[in-house]
Amino acid sequence: MNPTTKQKLMGVSTATLCTALFKRGLHHQYIQDVRPLNANLPNMVGEAYTLRYMPAREDLNTIEVFKNREHPQRKAVEECPPGAVFVIDSRKDARAASAGGILVTRLMKRGVAGIVTDGGFRDSPEIARLAIPAYHQRPAAPTNLTVHQAIDINVPVGCGDAPVFPGDVVVGDAEGVVVIPAHMADDIATEAVEMTAFEDFVQEQVMQGRSILGLYPPTDEQSRIDFAAWRKANGR
Amino acid sequence: MNPTTKQKLMGVSTATLCTALFKRGLHHQYIQDVRPLNANLPNMVGEAYTLRYMPAREDLNTIEVFKNREHPQRKAVEECPPGAVFVIDSRKDARAASAGGILVTRLMKRGVAGIVTDGGFRDSPEIARLAIPAYHQRPAAPTNLTVHQAIDINVPVGCGDAPVFPGDVVVGDAEGVVVIPAHMADDIATEAVEMTAFEDFVQEQVMQGRSILGLYPPTDEQSRIDFAAWRKANGR
Amino acid sequence: MNPTTKQKLMGVSTATLCTALFKRGLHHQYIQDVRPLNANLPNMVGEAYTLRYMPAREDLNTIEVFKNREHPQRKAVEECPPGAVFVIDSRKDARAASAGGILVTRLMKRGVAGIVTDGGFRDSPEIARLAIPAYHQRPAAPTNLTVHQAIDINVPVGCGDAPVFPGDVVVGDAEGVVVIPAHMADDIATEAVEMTAFEDFVQEQVMQGRSILGLYPPTDEQSRIDFAAWRKANGR
Amino acid sequence: MNPTTKQKLMGVSTATLCTALFKRGLHHQYIQDVRPLNANLPNMVGEAYTLRYMPAREDLNTIEVFKNREHPQRKAVEECPPGAVFVIDSRKDARAASAGGILVTRLMKRGVAGIVTDGGFRDSPEIARLAIPAYHQRPAAPTNLTVHQAIDINVPVGCGDAPVFPGDVVVGDAEGVVVIPAHMADDIATEAVEMTAFEDFVQEQVMQGRSILGLYPPTDEQSRIDFAAWRKANGR
Amino acid sequence: MNPTTKQKLMGVSTATLCTALFKRGLHHQYIQDVRPLNANLPNMVGEAYTLRYMPAREDLNTIEVFKNREHPQRKAVEECPPGAVFVIDSRKDARAASAGGILVTRLMKRGVAGIVTDGGFRDSPEIARLAIPAYHQRPAAPTNLTVHQAIDINVPVGCGDAPVFPGDVVVGDAEGVVVIPAHMADDIATEAVEMTAFEDFVQEQVMQGRSILGLYPPTDEQSRIDFAAWRKANGR
Amino acid sequence: MNPTTKQKLMGVSTATLCTALFKRGLHHQYIQDVRPLNANLPNMVGEAYTLRYMPAREDLNTIEVFKNREHPQRKAVEECPPGAVFVIDSRKDARAASAGGILVTRLMKRGVAGIVTDGGFRDSPEIARLAIPAYHQRPAAPTNLTVHQAIDINVPVGCGDAPVFPGDVVVGDAEGVVVIPAHMADDIATEAVEMTAFEDFVQEQVMQGRSILGLYPPTDEQSRIDFAAWRKANGR
Repeated sequence: MNPTTKQKLMGVSTATLCTALFKRGLHHQYIQDVRPLNANLPNMVGEAYTLRYMPAREDLNTIEVFKNREHPQRKAVEECPPGAVFVIDSRKDARAASAGGILVTRLMKRGVAGIVTDGGFRDSPEIARLAIPAYHQRPAAPTNLTVHQAIDINVPVGCGDAPVFPGDVVVGDAEGVVVIPAHMADDIATEAVEMTAFEDFVQEQVMQGRSILGLYPPTDEQSRIDFAAWRKANGR
Repeated sequence: MNPTTKQKLMGVSTATLCTALFKRGLHHQYIQDVRPLNANLPNMVGEAYTLRYMPAREDLNTIEVFKNREHPQRKAVEECPPGAVFVIDSRKDARAASAGGILVTRLMKRGVAGIVTDGGFRDSPEIARLAIPAYHQRPAAPTNLTVHQAIDINVPVGCGDAPVFPGDVVVGDAEGVVVIPAHMADDIATEAVEMTAFEDFVQEQVMQGRSILGLYPPTDEQSRIDFAAWRKANGR
Repeated sequence: MNPTTKQKLMGVSTATLCTALFKRGLHHQYIQDVRPLNANLPNMVGEAYTLRYMPAREDLNTIEVFKNREHPQRKAVEECPPGAVFVIDSRKDARAASAGGILVTRLMKRGVAGIVTDGGFRDSPEIARLAIPAYHQRPAAPTNLTVHQAIDINVPVGCGDAPVFPGDVVVGDAEGVVVIPAHMADDIATEAVEMTAFEDFVQEQVMQGRSILGLYPPTDEQSRIDFAAWRKANGR
Repeated sequence: MNPTTKQKLMGVSTATLCTALFKRGLHHQYIQDVRPLNANLPNMVGEAYTLRYMPAREDLNTIEVFKNREHPQRKAVEECPPGAVFVIDSRKDARAASAGGILVTRLMKRGVAGIVTDGGFRDSPEIARLAIPAYHQRPAAPTNLTVHQAIDINVPVGCGDAPVFPGDVVVGDAEGVVVIPAHMADDIATEAVEMTAFEDFVQEQVMQGRSILGLYPPTDEQSRIDFAAWRKANGR
Repeated sequence: MNPTTKQKLMGVSTATLCTALFKRGLHHQYIQDVRPLNANLPNMVGEAYTLRYMPAREDLNTIEVFKNREHPQRKAVEECPPGAVFVIDSRKDARAASAGGILVTRLMKRGVAGIVTDGGFRDSPEIARLAIPAYHQRPAAPTNLTVHQAIDINVPVGCGDAPVFPGDVVVGDAEGVVVIPAHMADDIATEAVEMTAFEDFVQEQVMQGRSILGLYPPTDEQSRIDFAAWRKANGR
Repeated sequence: MNPTTKQKLMGVSTATLCTALFKRGLHHQYIQDVRPLNANLPNMVGEAYTLRYMPAREDLNTIEVFKNREHPQRKAVEECPPGAVFVIDSRKDARAASAGGILVTRLMKRGVAGIVTDGGFRDSPEIARLAIPAYHQRPAAPTNLTVHQAIDINVPVGCGDAPVFPGDVVVGDAEGVVVIPAHMADDIATEAVEMTAFEDFVQEQVMQGRSILGLYPPTDEQSRIDFAAWRKANGR
């Protein structure tokens, strides 16, 4: 990813990004029903590296399987590129863990930018104390073997009803996670920075008591004049 | 709303209010599955002012619609009376936002007492830092245009499976939100204050090791005597 | 329960216990979709004492029923043994409370080790401030009479889709709650302590940058050697 | 059950019975989300005999357990009184069977009046061809051992969110199933017969083109006169 | 509605109409999760006339309310125009009836084209035998008063997550129900007739063993030639 | 697949197969919540050929995409081997179609043994009249482009929470669909035939009034003697 784009995305919200995507006709890029384990971290920004789970079949999911170094879950954790976001398609099923504290720590140490599952993490209290952004539906102490079998690495998947292609740009904030198609990441990032400036201006005006009518959106000429002045004054 | 009633309702819990309503045969006044964005604020008390959403039709919900000052969402935000609670019927659908930080800020600045949706808010981290009580199901970054179209202002609605009529008294605490029919708000408030005194007495007794049998409810004569003494001693 | 077993269980996680149970063929012992009201308390450990709710029939659930000292909810609260965990089968229905602040306080004062429901508690902000671990699905202000009728004490029940027999050992941590069949509690506790030592070793290694391959599980001989040395060095 | 009451209940609908119960303040006696396997049978009427399932624990639910003649599922099938309705509390979970063709056949041969589960039946095509009314949520081929453990016979249970006490009168028609508290069965049956006569009259009138206003309910004097005449003419 | 449009819509499927709407950017016009009570009737076609329900409050929903001739449910049944489709917004809640046999019969006799609810009907076996198309989620014997209060007539509503404006053209077949915005009904109908001709041609070809590649869609020139010939031969 | 195995599987039920799988420790092979469009066809038996859907992204799912002969949905329909069962992983989402009448007809003409989706079919009334077994959750008229994007052919998938590997043996009857791991299909088929013989014997005995105790399972020696005689007499 373009470093400038990454930097831009570190400073905008998922809400703003959703609107920018909406303007381009993309309505379903928000990963539904996941939340940060630690809402006080900076934004999570990186390219998607995916892991796909399918339902577990008991004979293929004994505790012994992890002895296999090629087990897709373990292999993916070791191969996910630094800077990427590790996205797990857990079929929205949080009855068993998508991953636990040790694997998430390993991802963090390897420089991975964050991790998202539409299922749940185990060891969630420990993960919440790590310096890597992690998002899930709810805690899930049971081992993934109970419900999930890792089956594919870095293929297109669904996560929380959002389409995720490897390489898509994934952004998370204290609210949730949004997926930006790779080819439009630069444009979206640039537009989102502009939108954020305007929203910050509006928020400041509204805090000062101004009405939203004519201001948000700026259908009044005066609003546009004021915004131009505000940008200059604030160097944005 | 009677200022005395408001004051009373500032000091009682939604749990107590639900019981008072239950005694009058009302079982479904609690807004199901919403939670405060900031659980540390005082109670939210005000008369319901409602906004009704219907499912969005794409051609009627482009980004341009907000340029219309008569758009019901924007209009409602500017017209909701100070002191009222802004209640949004989002059909329990949190896939897209019911409102965002700027609109909630505007409501706050206009003196609105609080906001409730059975969907979700966007900019939820910002809203959580505002001094206005806000309740939702879960965060939702996508713009409301994706899923919701604001269609009616201040009509009777459902919110979290509770019936809400304009003018009903809405009370929220750190647990959730309850809706009191307008005509019984004074009585309910008075009764709830009485119940709260008794519950505080009971809680104190139980903390001192007393059994709940005969005390809660006070079927033992001694419990009633002790409560009377406690009231006198505590000026309640 | 064996006091040594209790002590062991105070120091291990529900995630580790789930894996130990999984190795013995038990896949469904985790109580799904409950969370601690206060995630900062020590582990909850105790033998299950159960209360079963059925759907409420209106004529049998007026506010008057609590005047009956034999009402199962109140009786159970007074009879649950100190050290036990009070487990409520609320049929996963959180539309009304399973219990409230006064009853939970009474359980705490009576020395009960904790309380779990797959429904919700009322007075949840107050309960969150008590020194007794409590787990539920979500807050529920309405009185239980609206939806639930207490019908049976200390019978086998389901809680969050987990089977719970009276006397089973229930363990809760900041993640959730797991149920250990009584007859295997000692073994599971011992194994979990061993597993925890290994996981702590692994976590430390991973924090120092070591790969999980060959380490977790320890298929490399070196991993086993290092672990042995670590145990000695750390007295575990 | 009073044979006259049974006869009356054979000729009325669950819809009419629900209204009669509603008039007495009972709102939740309809078993939600179950349907007849064969909608062409006569009404099912009988006193409830219940079986309670809890979640299955794997070590207690091997295929061997049915060798135990005291297994509650098998015991209940052999002990359910002729004329009763066999009601199974399956916790609304249809992922595994509540019962199968052989057990339902045995119930039929023993003279049981019908069977209801809020889970599912296996061998549902075969059951649909039997002359015993059976109601479930949806077909479920897996053996009950996968998900359910029979634990209690003839205790109060929930079925499809309705409270069911042993001895309650259970009535099923082509629409669904309703539960009448035992002590009011005679009254409800009598009232339902009266209501059915009126509804038949109204239906006939409406088929002839008459407006429902003033007729249903009969707020016009003429409606009451016409109904009296209709009763006389039709011997009802 | 244009009579030609109505005639066209009588002969096309909801699937074809959904595709025609999709081509115009409308993705959510299908009423989710409703089914016909009688799948053997001709298509249902008419303009939407709506009834909106909100959650019932007990004191406003006693059995007496139907004595009021202005009760919106009864009023709507008497005022719905002949030829219209009666669409009920039941908030997807089928725990209580949206309407019953007598009201549906009255609508039929008044010449109404059909009835749809995203909740359930009571007296569903009787309604299934009437000559009016009716669609619901599942049967619901309890009176609407238990859960629903009729509150608004002929306002924009949601039904099964589809937006429905009064006057929209509603079409039902044996599969389900689709809502066509009024202003595009003529165009959609015309296009759907064309599409149906092509689909019938394709289906015939496929039944004769032809591959779908190049045929569906007709990217092969030969497919278009064959279709032209087929149209001529079949007079379509 | 072994033709003898196929023949055996044509004559046994999914319920019996689930029990045979359960005995081998496989609990989740039943595809949950799908039903046959036509319950009067013979069993569906064939090896799984899979299609995986992911959530649709709007820019990749315009109506034009089907012009591409390599579109996975169309390609899969043309390449699925005769005799196979076409299994679609639709993420249990029935808001849009997994396939329609023309594609299913093409599969039928190509000799495919059946089709299963955990979503829904469009043109379901037409599909129900075809001579190919088809199973889905519920009808879904909207084109798949609305919600689904076909992304992978013949990879391991989940379908109705069951794990499905290409080549697994899929069996459907009037009740539902079960997935047998390829390597155990012969054994399971043979065992199921034996079990079916016994169940037919038991059913016959029960129809004649015999108790299930000692008979089902045959813990009485007499039951085993009688079964042996029955087999001889009935040539099974």
